[in-house]
Amino acid sequence: MKNFKLKPIGIIHSSYKKPEDIPKEERKLIEGEIEIFKEFEDGLKDIDGFSHLIVIFVLHKSCGYNLQVTPPFDNEIRGVFATRSPYRPNPIGMTIVELLERKENILRVKGIDMIEGTPVVDIKPYLPGDRKENIKIGWLTGKIED
Amino acid sequence: MKNFKLKPIGIIHSSYKKPEDIPKEERKLIEGEIEIFKEFEDGLKDIDGFSHLIVIFVLHKSCGYNLQVTPPFDNEIRGVFATRSPYRPNPIGMTIVELLERKENILRVKGIDMIEGTPVVDIKPYLPGDRKENIKIGWLTGKIED
Repeated sequence: MKNFKLKPIGIIHSSYKKPEDIPKEERKLIEGEIEIFKEFEDGLKDIDGFSHLIVIFVLHKSCGYNLQVTPPFDNEIRGVFATRSPYRPNPIGMTIVELLERKENILRVKGIDMIEGTPVVDIKPYLPGDRKENIKIGWLTGKIED
Repeated sequence: MKNFKLKPIGIIHSSYKKPEDIPKEERKLIEGEIEIFKEFEDGLKDIDGFSHLIVIFVLHKSCGYNLQVTPPFDNEIRGVFATRSPYRPNPIGMTIVELLERKENILRVKGIDMIEGTPVVDIKPYLPGDRKENIKIGWLTGKIED
């Protein structure tokens, strides 16, 4: 199968410069900005009505990957697809953020876990179908809060 | 900013060969398989414990994009980032599926809206933090159920 190319459509602005600086417990409260490049601004029409956005970005500080990893809050080896580890075969991240405000090509958002300078490749509206009920979280049960 | 490359890690198997054949209303019930290529199978360890997975894939039938589109169930022009249109600057799709069963490198799943042969680039576990409360869906209000 052939490879595919991604071109950044924007960039994250955060007060955190390194992944290890982000306070994991407060992630949901961290505010920042998504700057959509001017050439893509027309694609933001009507986005203001949505409370939550799916942000797809490149884990640009990730170098290489392991198919099995030991997550930070665990001491067993897990398959990378059963984790949110940044060291994945394709270094693609996905985070759902709350949209606080849009000013032209700048989206002010809450709940970012990306660092300053992260390349953004897509923004999608979060829809009711993305809220799943009765979820089971395997090895993470009891290890993370809601 | 530089471009990034994606390499498929798997492929979707669905009984639908064309996007227009997928019955939108029954999307949530459609079952299919994600075949993860053998070289990535080790990354699936522990995935069985999760009830829902985030599948990131390439909208490989999408050719080109428009920053503003008229969605199928609407008659106004919307910004592409306020829609789930497949004709996006980066043709990346994201769907949350229910994991029914894993057999080696094959994940049997429910809720697919991808067609046969869709290249898969990442699988992530769906976590409680991905369930958002009090969501607002702008121009889609009253146009979709759930």
